[in-house]
Amino acid sequence: MSSTLGEKIKLSIFGESHGAAIGCVIDGLPAGVVLDFDKIQKEMDKRAPGRDKTSTARKEPDKPQILSGVLNGKTTGAPLAMIIENTNTRSGDYDSVRFVPRPGHSDYPAYVKYGGANDIRGGGHFSGRLTAPLVFAGAIAKQILAEKGVTVGAHILQIGAVRDTAFDKNNIDAEKLNELSSDFFATISNEKEIEMRTAIESARLQGDSVGGVIECAAVGLPVGIGSNMFSTVEGRLSYALFGIPAVKGVQFGAGFDFAQMRGSEANDPYEIKNGAVHLKSNNNGGVLGGITDGAPLVFSVVVKPTASIASAQDSINLKTMENEKLVVNGRHDPCIVPRAVAVVEAVCAFTLLDMMM
Amino acid sequence: MSSTLGEKIKLSIFGESHGAAIGCVIDGLPAGVVLDFDKIQKEMDKRAPGRDKTSTARKEPDKPQILSGVLNGKTTGAPLAMIIENTNTRSGDYDSVRFVPRPGHSDYPAYVKYGGANDIRGGGHFSGRLTAPLVFAGAIAKQILAEKGVTVGAHILQIGAVRDTAFDKNNIDAEKLNELSSDFFATISNEKEIEMRTAIESARLQGDSVGGVIECAAVGLPVGIGSNMFSTVEGRLSYALFGIPAVKGVQFGAGFDFAQMRGSEANDPYEIKNGAVHLKSNNNGGVLGGITDGAPLVFSVVVKPTASIASAQDSINLKTMENEKLVVNGRHDPCIVPRAVAVVEAVCAFTLLDMMM
Amino acid sequence: MSSTLGEKIKLSIFGESHGAAIGCVIDGLPAGVVLDFDKIQKEMDKRAPGRDKTSTARKEPDKPQILSGVLNGKTTGAPLAMIIENTNTRSGDYDSVRFVPRPGHSDYPAYVKYGGANDIRGGGHFSGRLTAPLVFAGAIAKQILAEKGVTVGAHILQIGAVRDTAFDKNNIDAEKLNELSSDFFATISNEKEIEMRTAIESARLQGDSVGGVIECAAVGLPVGIGSNMFSTVEGRLSYALFGIPAVKGVQFGAGFDFAQMRGSEANDPYEIKNGAVHLKSNNNGGVLGGITDGAPLVFSVVVKPTASIASAQDSINLKTMENEKLVVNGRHDPCIVPRAVAVVEAVCAFTLLDMMM
Amino acid sequence: MSSTLGEKIKLSIFGESHGAAIGCVIDGLPAGVVLDFDKIQKEMDKRAPGRDKTSTARKEPDKPQILSGVLNGKTTGAPLAMIIENTNTRSGDYDSVRFVPRPGHSDYPAYVKYGGANDIRGGGHFSGRLTAPLVFAGAIAKQILAEKGVTVGAHILQIGAVRDTAFDKNNIDAEKLNELSSDFFATISNEKEIEMRTAIESARLQGDSVGGVIECAAVGLPVGIGSNMFSTVEGRLSYALFGIPAVKGVQFGAGFDFAQMRGSEANDPYEIKNGAVHLKSNNNGGVLGGITDGAPLVFSVVVKPTASIASAQDSINLKTMENEKLVVNGRHDPCIVPRAVAVVEAVCAFTLLDMMM
Repeated sequence: MSSTLGEKIKLSIFGESHGAAIGCVIDGLPAGVVLDFDKIQKEMDKRAPGRDKTSTARKEPDKPQILSGVLNGKTTGAPLAMIIENTNTRSGDYDSVRFVPRPGHSDYPAYVKYGGANDIRGGGHFSGRLTAPLVFAGAIAKQILAEKGVTVGAHILQIGAVRDTAFDKNNIDAEKLNELSSDFFATISNEKEIEMRTAIESARLQGDSVGGVIECAAVGLPVGIGSNMFSTVEGRLSYALFGIPAVKGVQFGAGFDFAQMRGSEANDPYEIKNGAVHLKSNNNGGVLGGITDGAPLVFSVVVKPTASIASAQDSINLKTMENEKLVVNGRHDPCIVPRAVAVVEAVCAFTLLDMMM
Repeated sequence: MSSTLGEKIKLSIFGESHGAAIGCVIDGLPAGVVLDFDKIQKEMDKRAPGRDKTSTARKEPDKPQILSGVLNGKTTGAPLAMIIENTNTRSGDYDSVRFVPRPGHSDYPAYVKYGGANDIRGGGHFSGRLTAPLVFAGAIAKQILAEKGVTVGAHILQIGAVRDTAFDKNNIDAEKLNELSSDFFATISNEKEIEMRTAIESARLQGDSVGGVIECAAVGLPVGIGSNMFSTVEGRLSYALFGIPAVKGVQFGAGFDFAQMRGSEANDPYEIKNGAVHLKSNNNGGVLGGITDGAPLVFSVVVKPTASIASAQDSINLKTMENEKLVVNGRHDPCIVPRAVAVVEAVCAFTLLDMMM
Repeated sequence: MSSTLGEKIKLSIFGESHGAAIGCVIDGLPAGVVLDFDKIQKEMDKRAPGRDKTSTARKEPDKPQILSGVLNGKTTGAPLAMIIENTNTRSGDYDSVRFVPRPGHSDYPAYVKYGGANDIRGGGHFSGRLTAPLVFAGAIAKQILAEKGVTVGAHILQIGAVRDTAFDKNNIDAEKLNELSSDFFATISNEKEIEMRTAIESARLQGDSVGGVIECAAVGLPVGIGSNMFSTVEGRLSYALFGIPAVKGVQFGAGFDFAQMRGSEANDPYEIKNGAVHLKSNNNGGVLGGITDGAPLVFSVVVKPTASIASAQDSINLKTMENEKLVVNGRHDPCIVPRAVAVVEAVCAFTLLDMMM
Repeated sequence: MSSTLGEKIKLSIFGESHGAAIGCVIDGLPAGVVLDFDKIQKEMDKRAPGRDKTSTARKEPDKPQILSGVLNGKTTGAPLAMIIENTNTRSGDYDSVRFVPRPGHSDYPAYVKYGGANDIRGGGHFSGRLTAPLVFAGAIAKQILAEKGVTVGAHILQIGAVRDTAFDKNNIDAEKLNELSSDFFATISNEKEIEMRTAIESARLQGDSVGGVIECAAVGLPVGIGSNMFSTVEGRLSYALFGIPAVKGVQFGAGFDFAQMRGSEANDPYEIKNGAVHLKSNNNGGVLGGITDGAPLVFSVVVKPTASIASAQDSINLKTMENEKLVVNGRHDPCIVPRAVAVVEAVCAFTLLDMMM
């Protein structure tokens, strides 16, 4: 497995869902940064399960303990290590899946890859729980980015067939992003939140799950971050975003809508506005030739429906090599999109900071 | 700029559109591989311009010269260096854009990033021409992958509003991929090719351009390539794919359609077929938890319409900081999607090989 | 700071001498490896202080706690995280050095680099204590190497003017290395051990310290590990070895003695012995052109005398920018060479394993 | 093989001694740097063979041709590619060694590693000729370092038993380094140069070769370059220095002499001098805890005697697996130390620049 991310700031994530602890090491943070641990906890809480009916009923008090790298509330420049002890694990729930891979999960390829030695309890190192250290790292990155005038925020753009108002790509302000970022179920339209909750509840009642799309933006980025070819903003971000379990697509600006556009409408014209360069539209999502162009960075990611569902599914037994019906017990999110918002923001913040160091 | 790709095989691309030569160095190829240079040339030709009306009229004889790493037709294990000398450059065409950035191009952020020192003639290092070495590297990768039983192929899924038949994700064979891969305008449906050509010609006649979608697949991959978190197949591929100019979105399997799906339809159930594990559907595009699952790898990328168009566009003058109309002269592709097919295949092949070493 | 080592196996070390805990994450270990924790503890004990008069009187029970990556005594393939809680810290001892850098220590450049934000208690992240996780990682590497037939061992070649018998470079066997490796004060000659202990005790009684040389070897390596230019065995090993505090030189085979040699005596001739290729001498220390040649790998490192000594030293006050006498309190090793033997072995084992993966 | 060096600036070296060309790509240079190509050529000439009797009689006009990355004499920020065409190759000379490995060369391990597919003509990619692109990259690095106030220079410290005056480690000025750097046979003492030339000539007349030591220094470095553990100045430099063929040891400051020193003499005390921090001695060679401390960086490397000698040597035939006498024909340097001075300077300059970016 490869659980290390970043070039100038190196994030190493460890832990298994039902092991002693999960956590991370962040190597390369600047020294002397004052950290606001309440803000970090708030980000952790956004991702944590058990808040309401849209997520699993498990209670995981995601309280990070700092082991190193912080002295008197300030970074020391040495690697910052953090652990979250695992509690409230009901290992028995997963025994049935040892040789019967759950459809949509990594069980089967992981079984082949690790020869059956990987910890499958609760998904092991593949568990969505491993996004908690990612959110922690992102929360720290957000604070350092804020000092540089950069703000990151995201909202649920779509759940099933319900679609929120999209960002006005060329007109996003930091306050709005901060407001969204402090919301547990972040949408631009309040009505759409209600419809989305209904869609999730409907899936839950049917023992099923539903997918969605998260739209994320960053404002305040200087022109010139990233480069063409193999250090594009798009490439660096998507590399990390696909590390979030269930993400299956990433698009920037107009994204897949570009296919149906003409160059004359897709190109973002320039104008001088208040003495500065301004883009009159932002179809490119703030990135041209892989480099930030001063317009807001805007991208969206699709999150597939939670693979764990209550209904019986066709599977196989890897020991007997015979077909076998699988019923997955345990408590699961009917929709992980709301919780994933914090993770998408975190990955975006961490990657942007790494590119700006 | 960062023009280096790969972990075990390191590809370093260099060159500027109107400089002495473009080329690449490939460090880490296995020794003793017999290379078929005719096949490599065929791939180069697929990407080369000037074939028909869908692409620019420029003629660039993309003939790679090998400088090192090959002896008697076999790789030596030392870095393989290749150059393509630049010819047929009409530098005068681009003088007008030095301080007047072309909308949709990297001109403006590159000007800021490189303080005006970058070579802008023909797009310089940002030119689509720099995908030629990428295709060269991909062509070599394809030959080594073929020895491992892996075949890569792609087709034009969409041009403007015209949509080709998509891959039957769970039923793709190597012959079909090879057939597509030998086609200069690769589509599954012949009728759609005609409609697509019409759409491109229509854009060309209007001095405009049009975007599209390329769908790519790989078959024969063993189970277990990639890993979760930060070495996912999706992340590694998209990192490289966004290095292709104009790519603005990447999706795997059902991609953005997952948003509207329920878990019960999205999950790919297992069955035993002919004594082997088989997935009954392939919504996940051959990747689960970031790891190949034995089903065909299937993904698609969106290519935005060529930014260079004939009509006058709103721009600015970076010297005078005043608004200025821009008319781009020179010959340009009304649609780069057909030529980009070879590049997408190349990036896919190179990345898969790098992950399999 | 950069505390991450390795290419295929990534080791991330964290912790500060007087912080909550030190530890490491090892990402990329193969799955299914049975670990012998008694053997790991034995390696930890070799490095740990407080064994006898040659080392500091501090007692640090270096008991690693595994947080992840191990299930039922076997690696899971997920990152292996380990912590050692810090105890028995007497922070008061170090207050005097905050603005008065200790000669020979990193205090001054670290103060400049981290703007005074780094944790200086006990040396912080610069403490020799941070070699404990390195020994842990090396102990695991040794076990995996043993399965591949590779054995690593080292001994004290020199303390002050006392010189142990050197390895017979072309005639080293695994048993001898294992024997040395199980010794707390590893020398080939028993008499020299006594003389070395005397030299150390003499330095200690004078409130001074003394340096030395450690010679390390590995046998059982296949021909072909490493490559020329920038992945040489020598370069990879020395890169890591200089990460051990106080190491100031590394030499392979005849090392600096090569300066006085003629090619006719320096070259290692070949012969066929028992049907296999054999080198008649091993001046090159098992590496030719950066690649292992089948002869034992032999190198030595010099360890400077412990910088912390009891006598008053000339220093400065970085706040007042005036000269100031410095007296370092606290307990210190008069010679760290005996404890460093385990660290050199560990770095060698980890790096060789990383190169062999 | 791995011929890629650097983290922020990536140098990719290619070529084989008797192939079409050798060269390199340098990715990550800042844009807008004015390059002095005469100075670059002077560095190339220092390394080039055929100047006098101390080196091989081969004439290689090492004239770099720039393919990309430079426009109007200034860097563009895009990868800088350079080639040197190979001429004057007498391939016939090396036929005898195909299956009869030359002692002291990489022939045998390379044969095993590359399965006999590597190009052995003139040493192929293992040839010392491949240090030419390294010198080219170093020459560019030196020019950028000069703008930052950093000067690098080296001299021959030892040839056989003849030893030049060493640097006064705490008192080295830029002018002296520049003076040494412009010398084809750089020594501090003129008399020692004569003795060294005599020692080389003596070896040459006997068909033998002789080794030596090169001492290198850099002044003007700011405090704070590098970090402890795994990005030490010592580790980064030695990693690259061992990439120079024949280098078998690297030591910093007092190096292996530290073994016999007491802490009280080894520690470099501080004082305030002209209002600034000053080290009263420089046993640590300008590096403490892996970080530059403001004193001159001083290190030395040992270069083994040229492996190619005229006398018959014991070898084997890898095909017949029988002992075989080997006589190496062709023209060879009786001592490569004088030519290697430019290479050591180049590696030092490139690595320091990479660490300062």
